[in-house]
Amino acid sequence: MVRNKQVTLRDYVNGVPKESDMIVLSSDKSVVALPQGSNAVVVKNLYLSCDPYMRHLMTKSTEAHVILNSYSPGSVIRGHGVGKVMDSGHPKFKTGDFVWGITGWEEYSLITTPEALFKIEHTDDVVPLHYYTGILGMPGMAAYIGFYKIGAPKKGEYVFVSAASGAVGQLVGQFAKLMGCYVVGSASTKQKFDLLKNKFGFDAAFNYKEEDDLDAALKRYLPQGIDIYFDNVGGKMLDNVLLNMRNHGRIVVSGMISEYNLEQPDGLKNTMCLVYKRVRMEGFFVHDYYPLYPEFFDTMLSYIREGKILYVEDISQGLESGPSSFIGLFTGRNVGKQIVAVARE
Amino acid sequence: MVRNKQVTLRDYVNGVPKESDMIVLSSDKSVVALPQGSNAVVVKNLYLSCDPYMRHLMTKSTEAHVILNSYSPGSVIRGHGVGKVMDSGHPKFKTGDFVWGITGWEEYSLITTPEALFKIEHTDDVVPLHYYTGILGMPGMAAYIGFYKIGAPKKGEYVFVSAASGAVGQLVGQFAKLMGCYVVGSASTKQKFDLLKNKFGFDAAFNYKEEDDLDAALKRYLPQGIDIYFDNVGGKMLDNVLLNMRNHGRIVVSGMISEYNLEQPDGLKNTMCLVYKRVRMEGFFVHDYYPLYPEFFDTMLSYIREGKILYVEDISQGLESGPSSFIGLFTGRNVGKQIVAVARE
Repeated sequence: MVRNKQVTLRDYVNGVPKESDMIVLSSDKSVVALPQGSNAVVVKNLYLSCDPYMRHLMTKSTEAHVILNSYSPGSVIRGHGVGKVMDSGHPKFKTGDFVWGITGWEEYSLITTPEALFKIEHTDDVVPLHYYTGILGMPGMAAYIGFYKIGAPKKGEYVFVSAASGAVGQLVGQFAKLMGCYVVGSASTKQKFDLLKNKFGFDAAFNYKEEDDLDAALKRYLPQGIDIYFDNVGGKMLDNVLLNMRNHGRIVVSGMISEYNLEQPDGLKNTMCLVYKRVRMEGFFVHDYYPLYPEFFDTMLSYIREGKILYVEDISQGLESGPSSFIGLFTGRNVGKQIVAVARE
Repeated sequence: MVRNKQVTLRDYVNGVPKESDMIVLSSDKSVVALPQGSNAVVVKNLYLSCDPYMRHLMTKSTEAHVILNSYSPGSVIRGHGVGKVMDSGHPKFKTGDFVWGITGWEEYSLITTPEALFKIEHTDDVVPLHYYTGILGMPGMAAYIGFYKIGAPKKGEYVFVSAASGAVGQLVGQFAKLMGCYVVGSASTKQKFDLLKNKFGFDAAFNYKEEDDLDAALKRYLPQGIDIYFDNVGGKMLDNVLLNMRNHGRIVVSGMISEYNLEQPDGLKNTMCLVYKRVRMEGFFVHDYYPLYPEFFDTMLSYIREGKILYVEDISQGLESGPSSFIGLFTGRNVGKQIVAVARE
């Protein structure tokens, strides 16, 4: 029997999550043995993905609970990850396969709906396994679908991205440059500002924490206004962006990290701009677009190989680092995509 | 020389507009004579349209001023209307033609951009001239474009319309029934409730003023949720609708009358529902779609002739009734499309 280290939710979370909201413990219930006749798979988790949406699943009785399956106190945290198949009762997978998809924050997971897992067909020197938590996984797909399919960009348009050095934002900015757009990003530190300007090729960037007046900042960096806003933060930034949208602009609502810890969001006041400026504001679930994964994968793999797209990751070591890595998302501590490395193989 | 009675704006308006915010006076500056060599037209105004958006043009220094041309204190109120051409320097129009479009709240208007006017080609017993302020004019076109083009309805979907007995709402509800949707409307009085249920064929209706909890009301009347919300009011209703949207729903933002008189809107708090429910929220300007007017006109004229669409109007008599008719929009006094009859021909 193998003991299985796990990260569980202590209790529903109010406000900003703390490390102590999660507990790391060892379960003596082995999952490495597959139940007789099951079509489940047993996965050894290698890399776990820290994603802002997980914060929502820690809150009791929000609308999120109806649509996403929230965590319950005492249960293992669920999220996206990359793993290795240890045993399989499913014809699609065999022992030794690498997979990515929804798994548990634990060393080994029994996955009872393996149909939802993606088999990883490709890794090499420039495509490490952990890319499937980010650039080639859910966040990469979110950037791709959100920018190209929801944003419907045209060459020469003005694009603004918030949380621009994050798992999704850094890709959106680079897509925008490849499309021939003018792109501005906001982030929270000098280091991230430098990444945006010098590594990802954003035309301009600003540190929103240094701006008292976001409306003025947006008017300074995007005097012509904004055709596409890729929104990762919601809240005050979104409200000020509304004032700066151009006619027929699009707001791609990918996430609203600034609001996840608030019991009562600030509230969006400039919604009449949607009418005056004929703006389309649209949310999406990347999961709805998974049938397009092959198209996305081929495009992204070419971009990676040709060096057209770079990706910055922030990898913490060991399952024990999970809680602190996760809460770091909400203080902006991570630089790039936050990953927890659980095991090397 | 003909004296020209006019309605002017006294000063910028704060809060709920009052009759005294507008002044009815007689100008001794004749406009009936066309300037030599001008390609303008002189129009005798017959019917003027009271539309909620006009309230916005009475406010100083909002975003609206940048995009719409707001009124300035002392100037004649502008709005949509139906008139008769008295003199024309433009090849498209001749004396005696009937037209609709943007005109002044006065007996005679000199219209210097007559290209923007629509010539009225058709009137008869079932299509009176004043229909071009409503069902066959801008509000009718807004209902048509908003519902069919922005809402993208499908048979069997659940549709909710606010301000449902108004100039636009009553048409949206009837379009939804013709499309085979289930449609619920909200309005402010028993009389309007009866119209929705008994005249326009809404499946259900409620008086929002009698509901303490709009979320509960929406869940009661639309337990399956809402696929299309045709929003004429914004504010609290919109925020509660967000909680009740179905996945992949559409919010057509036509207007936000509940917010026009507020210095500080309440603020939309449930915006995360846009993501969870993959909702598209889209504002539009009917003017952008005027190239589709012939398609709209043919459709609507058939509906009117076949008795498939009814239209309720509230016509006040005389230019002097303009200010009180206009402010009645904001207390819900009007029943159906509010029109001011200035002259019969």
